[in-house]
Amino acid sequence: MRTYLDCYPCFLRQALDGARHAGADNEGQQRVVSHVLGLLKRAEPSRTPPEIGDEVHRMVRRICGNGDPYRGAKDASTRQALALFPQLKVLVQEALDPLDVALRLSIAGNIIDLGPDHQYDLWGVIERVLSQSFALDDRAALRQALDQADEVLYLADNAGETVFDRILIEALDVPVTYAVKGGPVLNDATLADARAAGLDGAATLADTGSDAPGTILHRCSSAFRALYDQAELIVAKGQANYETLSEAGPKAFLLLQTKCPVIARDAGVPEGSIVVKQG
Amino acid sequence: MRTYLDCYPCFLRQALDGARHAGADNEGQQRVVSHVLGLLKRAEPSRTPPEIGDEVHRMVRRICGNGDPYRGAKDASTRQALALFPQLKVLVQEALDPLDVALRLSIAGNIIDLGPDHQYDLWGVIERVLSQSFALDDRAALRQALDQADEVLYLADNAGETVFDRILIEALDVPVTYAVKGGPVLNDATLADARAAGLDGAATLADTGSDAPGTILHRCSSAFRALYDQAELIVAKGQANYETLSEAGPKAFLLLQTKCPVIARDAGVPEGSIVVKQG
Repeated sequence: MRTYLDCYPCFLRQALDGARHAGADNEGQQRVVSHVLGLLKRAEPSRTPPEIGDEVHRMVRRICGNGDPYRGAKDASTRQALALFPQLKVLVQEALDPLDVALRLSIAGNIIDLGPDHQYDLWGVIERVLSQSFALDDRAALRQALDQADEVLYLADNAGETVFDRILIEALDVPVTYAVKGGPVLNDATLADARAAGLDGAATLADTGSDAPGTILHRCSSAFRALYDQAELIVAKGQANYETLSEAGPKAFLLLQTKCPVIARDAGVPEGSIVVKQG
Repeated sequence: MRTYLDCYPCFLRQALDGARHAGADNEGQQRVVSHVLGLLKRAEPSRTPPEIGDEVHRMVRRICGNGDPYRGAKDASTRQALALFPQLKVLVQEALDPLDVALRLSIAGNIIDLGPDHQYDLWGVIERVLSQSFALDDRAALRQALDQADEVLYLADNAGETVFDRILIEALDVPVTYAVKGGPVLNDATLADARAAGLDGAATLADTGSDAPGTILHRCSSAFRALYDQAELIVAKGQANYETLSEAGPKAFLLLQTKCPVIARDAGVPEGSIVVKQG
């Protein structure tokens, strides 16, 4: 997905949020805003939002001298989600259709995203997503692909959301490789976040080799690209994967909530929708 | 009020909105965004938001070759408000405290503001404001000042809101000079908008001599500055007047709704508050 003009104010707001998460004082925040204004003026809008967002957040980390501004927020999200884990497991165990409930929970967890300008009530979102209609619904094709696949490559999104992914992965009958980011960006999950969420007991862990949001293939390691190319079935979580993998073939399924008006419009669905979309 | 860093993403969004109101195509919108990024990088943050906003919207008008991008939106707001006028008059006539209801209606009308990123249901806002508690409440001092004043200088804000101002002005026992902007900026009212709302029958019309948002005194005409200096009592509507006149003396009363988080924080009240504040 290309970058829309509406993304520019959002990048600037994200940069300011990032500087604050990094603990920058007012002068530091001002330096970040000034540099990001210059970066955005030079940015090539034919690139995807995560490619520009990668540069924005890299600049925030460099200027603030903080390699992982969202560390505290990520830990808090993981703790909050883990506290719900037993209840989530019961929801799946007691469901008439456990896989459907687990899939919905994994999408519910996608609300834990510190990129968009939104606040959320996590349990309220879980209740909504459990009964919400899918705005794009390739669940039947996904179930068929899961029945046929010998393994799944699962592309993670955010820390805390990881716990909800674990719920889905534990409901699958097929081995999963769970790929996180190669380094910190925004509140995206890294190996440490995946382990903290207990994913190491549910899947084989891997990373993209890149600290860019989403999955920008030419920025990923050759080891990850081999995983990606050889995968029979890819489950990709979240908006940034939608933005970077929207041209992926039919072996990829994008699972997300549309949390910003730009992505909602690009996908042709209302903001606040839940989506399972085959590539 | 100084400009906060949070204002910068908002300026950029406003510029894009303005370009769209001006009918710019994607290329024109991109030119606006690029130029405004440069403008914001050069902007001096010690200035007030309306001073920077003035430059932003001037640049939008110049690049788009459209001197009044919000013309259609302003006309629509005035029509919508005029359609409610008879009902609003009845609300005041039937009130136990007509002045209080008229004051609340004038503040309710302040929701008609195309600067902040918000949508509103006009009648819903009227009903809310009629019973809402004031977050800052200098109504007693305002009533006392109105009792003692021989005339009032009333600083207008937006087209459509003008109709709600007319309701308040018609409930006063004192002659009013109603000052609008000297030229189009955002959806701020000009003389044409005031006349379309019927203000010429309720007050003496004047203009600030400036097309900047709010009241930037050093940008106003000497005729307006004389009015301002000689006024015994000033009623100033809306956020931009709050931002530019927050240092005004006790003869000024600021009437507004806090429609953005920055102004709410500066005023020390929640977003969505109603305010009557003596300078």
